[in-house]
Amino acid sequence: MLKGFMVPLSTQGKSALTWLPPWHYSGDCIAIEYWADPAAVAALLPPGMTPAENARGRAFFWFLDWQFTGSNDELTDPARYQYREALVLVEALFEGMPVNYCPHILVDNDAALARGWAQGFPKKLGSIYQTRSFSAPSPAVAPLAKGSRFGASAAAHGERLATARIQLEEKIANPLTVFNRPTTIRRYFPQLTAGHQDRPAVDELTLSLTDNLAIVDVWAGSAELATPQVQGEDMHLIAPLRVGRGYRLSMAYSVTDLRILKNYIV
Amino acid sequence: MLKGFMVPLSTQGKSALTWLPPWHYSGDCIAIEYWADPAAVAALLPPGMTPAENARGRAFFWFLDWQFTGSNDELTDPARYQYREALVLVEALFEGMPVNYCPHILVDNDAALARGWAQGFPKKLGSIYQTRSFSAPSPAVAPLAKGSRFGASAAAHGERLATARIQLEEKIANPLTVFNRPTTIRRYFPQLTAGHQDRPAVDELTLSLTDNLAIVDVWAGSAELATPQVQGEDMHLIAPLRVGRGYRLSMAYSVTDLRILKNYIV
Amino acid sequence: MLKGFMVPLSTQGKSALTWLPPWHYSGDCIAIEYWADPAAVAALLPPGMTPAENARGRAFFWFLDWQFTGSNDELTDPARYQYREALVLVEALFEGMPVNYCPHILVDNDAALARGWAQGFPKKLGSIYQTRSFSAPSPAVAPLAKGSRFGASAAAHGERLATARIQLEEKIANPLTVFNRPTTIRRYFPQLTAGHQDRPAVDELTLSLTDNLAIVDVWAGSAELATPQVQGEDMHLIAPLRVGRGYRLSMAYSVTDLRILKNYIV
Amino acid sequence: MLKGFMVPLSTQGKSALTWLPPWHYSGDCIAIEYWADPAAVAALLPPGMTPAENARGRAFFWFLDWQFTGSNDELTDPARYQYREALVLVEALFEGMPVNYCPHILVDNDAALARGWAQGFPKKLGSIYQTRSFSAPSPAVAPLAKGSRFGASAAAHGERLATARIQLEEKIANPLTVFNRPTTIRRYFPQLTAGHQDRPAVDELTLSLTDNLAIVDVWAGSAELATPQVQGEDMHLIAPLRVGRGYRLSMAYSVTDLRILKNYIV
Repeated sequence: MLKGFMVPLSTQGKSALTWLPPWHYSGDCIAIEYWADPAAVAALLPPGMTPAENARGRAFFWFLDWQFTGSNDELTDPARYQYREALVLVEALFEGMPVNYCPHILVDNDAALARGWAQGFPKKLGSIYQTRSFSAPSPAVAPLAKGSRFGASAAAHGERLATARIQLEEKIANPLTVFNRPTTIRRYFPQLTAGHQDRPAVDELTLSLTDNLAIVDVWAGSAELATPQVQGEDMHLIAPLRVGRGYRLSMAYSVTDLRILKNYIV
Repeated sequence: MLKGFMVPLSTQGKSALTWLPPWHYSGDCIAIEYWADPAAVAALLPPGMTPAENARGRAFFWFLDWQFTGSNDELTDPARYQYREALVLVEALFEGMPVNYCPHILVDNDAALARGWAQGFPKKLGSIYQTRSFSAPSPAVAPLAKGSRFGASAAAHGERLATARIQLEEKIANPLTVFNRPTTIRRYFPQLTAGHQDRPAVDELTLSLTDNLAIVDVWAGSAELATPQVQGEDMHLIAPLRVGRGYRLSMAYSVTDLRILKNYIV
Repeated sequence: MLKGFMVPLSTQGKSALTWLPPWHYSGDCIAIEYWADPAAVAALLPPGMTPAENARGRAFFWFLDWQFTGSNDELTDPARYQYREALVLVEALFEGMPVNYCPHILVDNDAALARGWAQGFPKKLGSIYQTRSFSAPSPAVAPLAKGSRFGASAAAHGERLATARIQLEEKIANPLTVFNRPTTIRRYFPQLTAGHQDRPAVDELTLSLTDNLAIVDVWAGSAELATPQVQGEDMHLIAPLRVGRGYRLSMAYSVTDLRILKNYIV
Repeated sequence: MLKGFMVPLSTQGKSALTWLPPWHYSGDCIAIEYWADPAAVAALLPPGMTPAENARGRAFFWFLDWQFTGSNDELTDPARYQYREALVLVEALFEGMPVNYCPHILVDNDAALARGWAQGFPKKLGSIYQTRSFSAPSPAVAPLAKGSRFGASAAAHGERLATARIQLEEKIANPLTVFNRPTTIRRYFPQLTAGHQDRPAVDELTLSLTDNLAIVDVWAGSAELATPQVQGEDMHLIAPLRVGRGYRLSMAYSVTDLRILKNYIV
């Protein structure tokens, strides 16, 4: 019996890109609030989703440094169990429910890419960086303190896709005042057989389920964000027209399940 | 209407990991014939497949330097349209038909990874190298000539998974005397919803279709191959017990279709 | 007037691999105490250095996640101002003074490589990872607490050069009881002109000067370390015969100067 | 006795970034003729060099795919003995002799970086790509033929520094009509000791010596080149004001010596 939650299936299952849940994550994040062209945001939404309440094109650009593990100390193999991520979440409504929707996301690890696809995150490869906060005192620390500055960037194929900087101003007591929408994604897997290439094998709107979600050490401040136009990409279509606040926070959750909101295949 | 053959779907479709076929490929290859433990090879075969005629565990380890393009000179963007690949093909039978089956494959490009998944190749990320043959005369050339030596290697997560060397002896007039089995793969996409995680959404045995296949400049010679045991991988289960001949060749084909041999979902 | 502390010199000096000191660093570290073959350690020492007091081949293998900056918030450009490092420090004596000497070191950033050469660190490129300690509670955190486990690895050219794991047991009140030897290195730059290739242009024994050194949050525990033999490397000549304790700590310092202990060119 | 032409010196010398010459190279190249601001070019020249005959700011931007070897089949270890390179050569005069001078160069391999420094090439790390010409017929081939199109790019830190495209028009019978100037470089190694940081330890103008130079299969055609402004780089100061012809060629040579034209240290 071949083993593995994802390919490659193998006799012992060790080679599989990922094993069965639970999947545990903890990481540091920089998130930039911004507003894009509302029509461009609306055009990216999958069927059945509508622009957010106010239809102003509000979005967040996230940069994340993740560590992940299963139940067997996998985090002690950091060459495999760390990754960096950058993503856009745009605000939308699904059947009247305020949600985020993820149209673009980059990671630097294939297990993360595979898991993302299984959930609906449309992951591609990129190289992503964010300023870290260290503990030994130095001008190189970037402490979690008023005035501290952080930067972040994302690139793919040697093209810079996003550059951000924030400066911390105040600690946020209740993260839920800022981050309170569930995330929807589109789980999609095509068919390559001739005559069926316009009909995916899997096409579902799904809801990311985050068990034991913890958001801690949230700081807010001023922010800059640029997402330039790049040949062969169209993320710039939802580039910032206006940038809001920047956030630096730490987050953890576990994944054990996925909710299917809608199956587009009839 | 959102565009893209694969995620991310977007308004203009530029960001998609890949567009609709045709997909054209041309590349240089090193292939090493070897024999693995027949029981280990048999254990990797999907349902309905049986060990090859002689059941001796014969396999080929391939290293490929690819360039690919669509119909719009995409090959002039080489940061995106080149990739390197390493894979194992084991010999098997499907309903009595001699075929190859691909249990392990590495690439260094996300478009290649995504296309592979759509076909059934169980691709993971790796870093792969092969000696190239250049034209300006020098001890650094590795000419296509008797006595010339080539090497190749594949690694992932900073672990060497395969190292090979060959020395050319003779040109092969008819490549079909060596490479004559079609390749079967397992197209597989899981479900993450709790209670369904042991039932994939897509699980098919497929046949890779290679239009306009061209195999040219084939040389054969002596070979060495090692695929050491590595923590977190089990490719070593089909490591070489005996190594046969090594080949250096160039190959091209186009992909426009995929044949489904068997749907494992009932 | 061309500008830049190191090449490339340019009109504005922006392209230079590095600017003039001060260079500020802060980072997280995993260090593994071990004992190598004393004769192999002695054989690596430069002229004038002798084996340590007890000549037992004691060494430390370090893994470091660094952030660095100058005086202008360079740390907000994390794609350039973070790097990872792995190095060996062997114990030795220089004119009777207990010191460490660094025979092998890997980094993943060219500014770090260039600065290292300017000081005497014999840096090569590698890919290095260590388990990080995050703050949002999860099985993926690796907290600084008794029983917590960390791993680390270093690789180059797709070959694993070192793999380590530690398990924290106790906090160390005074880091100076463990880390108290200054580090010596060999600053070396060759000549390529025919007839002079055996006579370097620069060949000095130097002492690394670390201003405002801070070592904090030091934990000690049990450790494992492996440095396997790899084709084209000889770090395994000082592989661990016995492994001592493992440490996880944070460290910061600034560099503004370098002490020349000995000029080997007469 | 410690061995190695460059650091790290070690007992067997295997770990050294590079061994003694001869160093043999063979590769494929794309070169774009262009004209930059003559004043910006002149400003980059080291002391004693003057603008070229016509002082028009003529330069070439090169992209190179290299394979290199010593005398022991090192090219069969392609994970170490291949690299990609991008560089600018500007035209200048040294004591009346027409030469090229190299102010900027990127490579993706540390042995190449170290050798470059030993010669005077001011190498930094980057990721570089060029369209390859394969032999198995396909739209993906990029043949050496009239009308064939090639692209190339160079990036560092996730920023695109150069993008080029050429279209072949005619074969060039005599490469020396195009490529006939020797290359000068500045060999430079700083001092870090306080009070000496403005006085390099090594500062020489050198002439690259290329034994057994072979330039073959030279095609010329139309060209495009862009070198955009990027934060933290100043290569754009010599960006193309006008682009000339593009060339695709193969080149080989060996390095055994270096000529010192001038020692700037008195």
